[in-house]
Amino acid sequence: MDQDPSEASGYDAAVVDLLGVLAYGELTAFIRMAADCDLAPTLSLKSQMGALATADYLHYQQLSEHMVGRGIDPEAAMAPFVAPIAAFHERTRPRGWLEGLVKAYVGDGIAKDFYREMTAFVDEPTQAVMQAALEDAGHADFVVQIVRDTIRTDRTTAGRLALWGRRLLGEALSQAQAVAVERDAMAALLVGGGADLGDVGRMFTRLTDNHQRRMTRMGLDS
Amino acid sequence: MDQDPSEASGYDAAVVDLLGVLAYGELTAFIRMAADCDLAPTLSLKSQMGALATADYLHYQQLSEHMVGRGIDPEAAMAPFVAPIAAFHERTRPRGWLEGLVKAYVGDGIAKDFYREMTAFVDEPTQAVMQAALEDAGHADFVVQIVRDTIRTDRTTAGRLALWGRRLLGEALSQAQAVAVERDAMAALLVGGGADLGDVGRMFTRLTDNHQRRMTRMGLDS
Repeated sequence: MDQDPSEASGYDAAVVDLLGVLAYGELTAFIRMAADCDLAPTLSLKSQMGALATADYLHYQQLSEHMVGRGIDPEAAMAPFVAPIAAFHERTRPRGWLEGLVKAYVGDGIAKDFYREMTAFVDEPTQAVMQAALEDAGHADFVVQIVRDTIRTDRTTAGRLALWGRRLLGEALSQAQAVAVERDAMAALLVGGGADLGDVGRMFTRLTDNHQRRMTRMGLDS
Repeated sequence: MDQDPSEASGYDAAVVDLLGVLAYGELTAFIRMAADCDLAPTLSLKSQMGALATADYLHYQQLSEHMVGRGIDPEAAMAPFVAPIAAFHERTRPRGWLEGLVKAYVGDGIAKDFYREMTAFVDEPTQAVMQAALEDAGHADFVVQIVRDTIRTDRTTAGRLALWGRRLLGEALSQAQAVAVERDAMAALLVGGGADLGDVGRMFTRLTDNHQRRMTRMGLDS
């Protein structure tokens, strides 16, 4: 079935949006992280950052194939999210390797939390493709040790990276809010799925709490 | 068995070099192509360029795992090739999307030709991992149509890209020569494998001929 998002029913339109934002998020994260490989100080770190980037491209590919299988045009589905995601990356260009690392870890974490929250509201085949993105957890764990080792002897960097982490979350939430205002259907997916505004608020609290936990794990308490 | 390249026998040292140069070539091509995704004018082209980049990372990973399985330290094996491969990319930074595309197609082609030439001289397990890199041919074919479509109406670009292709081959051969001078074992692999200097010369002629064929396919006869 060939499906124009604007004509689809509310649920379908919401799933198109959700798949579109996830796919474009993965594609862009892939490009940004691969570019940040250049900043890695050793071959082994280049390689580990490359593994993270490649995993994101493969998720993008699975999401894209899932869309094609449902008669959704991936490019049309991704188009509304090009500007906000580009704005996020534009406003959070890492200055140096450590900021790139923290961004990869924090960004991966926020994305996975968001996948986890949204799987509750979608049909089974969409759940399955989202689940796949959640399964390769652990790829980003090398970051924790590097950051902890660095800040043990460098408190200035610790302070700077703590601030950077707050900024990453702030920019992510502010772009997410801009998207929610523009894309009624996706916001309605949550509410229509039985969530009330209180639930949505609690979801954002959970995202923020999990972010805080990741910062603490890196030793970046703020 | 743990093997220090410098203590290994001639053949082993040559295979370490060969695997090292192939692995680092793939890793770097992955980073460069992923970065060039940013220049792609449409989402579909970003996606196709991303597929090329990801395939290169997966080859890198296979080569790296193959080395670990043989007791070769991938980082040590890649180290001698960091400078010449960085020099190649430094001297061939694409100015714009089309140059990036042509570089991806031409670079992929030269790399595959080199894999094909070298498989004759290595043991079977190494052959198998090199073969894998040759199998996903076709990923780069989208480039041909885009370049042909562009130059049909833009002869200035055709001239510029033809020059660019010659430059890419020239820089690749000049870095290859620098590597051959520095890495006796790898050069000896060819000759020791039964090839005389005439054979090596003919190999370079074949690489150049194949490059010319790819340029012609894109409509970039020079």
